[in-house]
Amino acid sequence: MIVIKIGGSSGINLSYVCADVAALTKEGKQLVVMHGTGKEADALGEKLGRPARHVTSPQGFTSRYTDRDTLEVFVMAACGKVNTFLVEGLQKLGVNAIGLSGVDGRLLEGTRKDAIRIVENGKQRILRDDYTGKVEKVNADLLRVLLERGYIPVVAPLAISYQGDAINVDGDRAAAMIAGALGAEQLIIVSNVPGLLRAYPDESTLIAHIDKNRVEQSIDFAEGRMKKKVLGASEALGLGVKQVIFTDGRVELPIHRAIEGKGTVIE
Amino acid sequence: MIVIKIGGSSGINLSYVCADVAALTKEGKQLVVMHGTGKEADALGEKLGRPARHVTSPQGFTSRYTDRDTLEVFVMAACGKVNTFLVEGLQKLGVNAIGLSGVDGRLLEGTRKDAIRIVENGKQRILRDDYTGKVEKVNADLLRVLLERGYIPVVAPLAISYQGDAINVDGDRAAAMIAGALGAEQLIIVSNVPGLLRAYPDESTLIAHIDKNRVEQSIDFAEGRMKKKVLGASEALGLGVKQVIFTDGRVELPIHRAIEGKGTVIE
Repeated sequence: MIVIKIGGSSGINLSYVCADVAALTKEGKQLVVMHGTGKEADALGEKLGRPARHVTSPQGFTSRYTDRDTLEVFVMAACGKVNTFLVEGLQKLGVNAIGLSGVDGRLLEGTRKDAIRIVENGKQRILRDDYTGKVEKVNADLLRVLLERGYIPVVAPLAISYQGDAINVDGDRAAAMIAGALGAEQLIIVSNVPGLLRAYPDESTLIAHIDKNRVEQSIDFAEGRMKKKVLGASEALGLGVKQVIFTDGRVELPIHRAIEGKGTVIE
Repeated sequence: MIVIKIGGSSGINLSYVCADVAALTKEGKQLVVMHGTGKEADALGEKLGRPARHVTSPQGFTSRYTDRDTLEVFVMAACGKVNTFLVEGLQKLGVNAIGLSGVDGRLLEGTRKDAIRIVENGKQRILRDDYTGKVEKVNADLLRVLLERGYIPVVAPLAISYQGDAINVDGDRAAAMIAGALGAEQLIIVSNVPGLLRAYPDESTLIAHIDKNRVEQSIDFAEGRMKKKVLGASEALGLGVKQVIFTDGRVELPIHRAIEGKGTVIE
């Protein structure tokens, strides 16, 4: 079992990723695909006059402030455009993909954080009415039922709170939870860089290998969005996933390259 | 088994519909819910500067001209906003809803009509690059697998063509196909009128009962969107569904009222 997380940033070549997913399913691999939404949610928010507000926590992690209006934009981008057209693209290649978000059948559950602490102009403050959270429980039975019947689940990064609110969650960490719940051997994180870079954005500083016990230290020099990917990697390994691999989604065969050990391998 | 189609027009009280769906699931009824998207797709199209273009066929049926740009708007409204928040609303009431569109797992398949004949200013012409079609096949196995495990499928009105294109389909006729494929006893169509009216919009002209053999004649005096609902009813009966009931979604307990025979009963 491999869980593949396709980043939501620009630069990733979705045709390459989909073709590679199709090749893997033809090889008989069991896959679950999770996707991001960042670029599309930002673009839709701009067009609707509701630009995204990206905030930074005191620990340096960035996230999207998600009030109910932003949640609506996020849902339209994530469950609407990105998920449906990814499923369509895979179906065109003969992959029997099925799109879900964590809200569907309570696939991903977590606690809603309705207030978040952020740092703005050097000062800490609290933002309220937030619809975000972290995935705490995975309905692995639903995924297994679909996988057993030959469907490839394609999951959008939303979860449902215990009170039934749809919440925006980080896709990398959600993919880590899914990989852990399914006992996946590998979590492959596809982004628009070759892997974790010691000195971002210098691609010649790619780190080829990180030992499981040193992954948390890597969070410190990871930049921006990469911080959460490393956190997700750490969480996946903690849940028993054998390998987490960061791979370059701008080139052909990104998943096969990851399986061959290219990119950043964390184990 | 009951298939419920919730219209996508304004006026329908979704809280009433969801509460009634929750009550029915607590009574142990097996349900599949299909929803429309009209109002939300129109509103989103307006906001994005891509207003909907509603066209009329030579037979008098109205539909939404759906080029690839419109399909994107439609998908964001249908699979994004309407489907996800309907699932969320049902989950809040304890219904383990799972959102799907016909693209997912090839749930609804049909032929894409890439050219449609329309009547404009009294003249017939052809519009091309259309992404619409009619549902011809239902993946009933996928619905049954979910129903057996206690999930309530909530289906958005898209299908997938045999070539793998997402296509916009009429929700009433799609619901009819689902009802037929599952051998449902009833198809309940929730709209913003009390039922089929002999002289629309005069609600005192409600037709309480239509005989199965006379349903096609009713298409002639049905107005606008109601024409396709009557066509869907006719198709459902042709597929062995025992009763099709048009019910008023503006009032409390719309589904229970339908089951009690209020609205327009076609059998």
